[in-house]
Amino acid sequence: MLRVLIDMDEVIADTTGGMTRWYGKTFDGAIDFENMRKGGSLVKGFPEMHQPIVRQQLFEPGFFRNLPVMAGSRAVLEEMNRRYEIFVVSAATEFPNSLREKFDWMQEHFPFISWEQLVLCGSKKMMEGDYMIDDHSRHLKLFKGRSYLFTAPHNLNETEFERIRDWEHAASIFLK
Amino acid sequence: MLRVLIDMDEVIADTTGGMTRWYGKTFDGAIDFENMRKGGSLVKGFPEMHQPIVRQQLFEPGFFRNLPVMAGSRAVLEEMNRRYEIFVVSAATEFPNSLREKFDWMQEHFPFISWEQLVLCGSKKMMEGDYMIDDHSRHLKLFKGRSYLFTAPHNLNETEFERIRDWEHAASIFLK
Repeated sequence: MLRVLIDMDEVIADTTGGMTRWYGKTFDGAIDFENMRKGGSLVKGFPEMHQPIVRQQLFEPGFFRNLPVMAGSRAVLEEMNRRYEIFVVSAATEFPNSLREKFDWMQEHFPFISWEQLVLCGSKKMMEGDYMIDDHSRHLKLFKGRSYLFTAPHNLNETEFERIRDWEHAASIFLK
Repeated sequence: MLRVLIDMDEVIADTTGGMTRWYGKTFDGAIDFENMRKGGSLVKGFPEMHQPIVRQQLFEPGFFRNLPVMAGSRAVLEEMNRRYEIFVVSAATEFPNSLREKFDWMQEHFPFISWEQLVLCGSKKMMEGDYMIDDHSRHLKLFKGRSYLFTAPHNLNETEFERIRDWEHAASIFLK
């Protein structure tokens, strides 16, 4: 079976959605997706005075546990899991509170992905596979297989990698 | 730099030591290292009536956080970290409570290993490197680089892999 390495944040977990929802409940400032795109970072889309607290939110208990599931990801990943060797690989060790939360989140939303298939890491450079789907080109650059950049507001300006726009698009590639 | 993948339990963390210490404080039964060797498992070294509770201990909060550091590992790993690309790779997702505890344990005992170098996973089959040091042959079997079985009471009967007996022996191989 071909091996596919799939990222969590911005790929199967809607991190931008979770952050903007939290921000909207907490502050009045406007979120600027154009700045997110130009700055190449989720945090850059928020008013400058709030960027430190937005960044801090990534370290807070509960943030990752409560993220929405990315639209369409569950059904496509469930079918991909029958046809490919899937690993869900998340750069999580930067955010220690996220470790258990990401495990629990996977159990709740993707129960067909076993604990053997979950990888919580920092760097992904030692990961070997046939395909990698990730929203960060820094991970894709170090990957020797075929790389797909999963479209997220922060990476819209990048042109180096073939894109997957959303999970319908992923299905058209992997489940055709 | 050559890449070395280093396991945690029974390699840099003294899991057998932590378990036997806990057992001795809790029960009166005798630990039989001969049964551990013959059964190929840490748990098999404990009296049969206590094996379920010993196994359960691996899931309890605090177990992994409080493990002793394997003798000699810190100084050798610190020097190896200067000469090699090191990743500490632990099959941890089977034990959800261990995830944060293993992160905190690393920060306390091996602060020179950054969060980028820590991998908490289930399977290790997608890990690529030049060397792997592990006490479980099931991980070494799937590795394409050079494999070293780190000697532990449960693996004394195995003959398939070149061994590292202890951290002094590791230094004689990697720091010569």
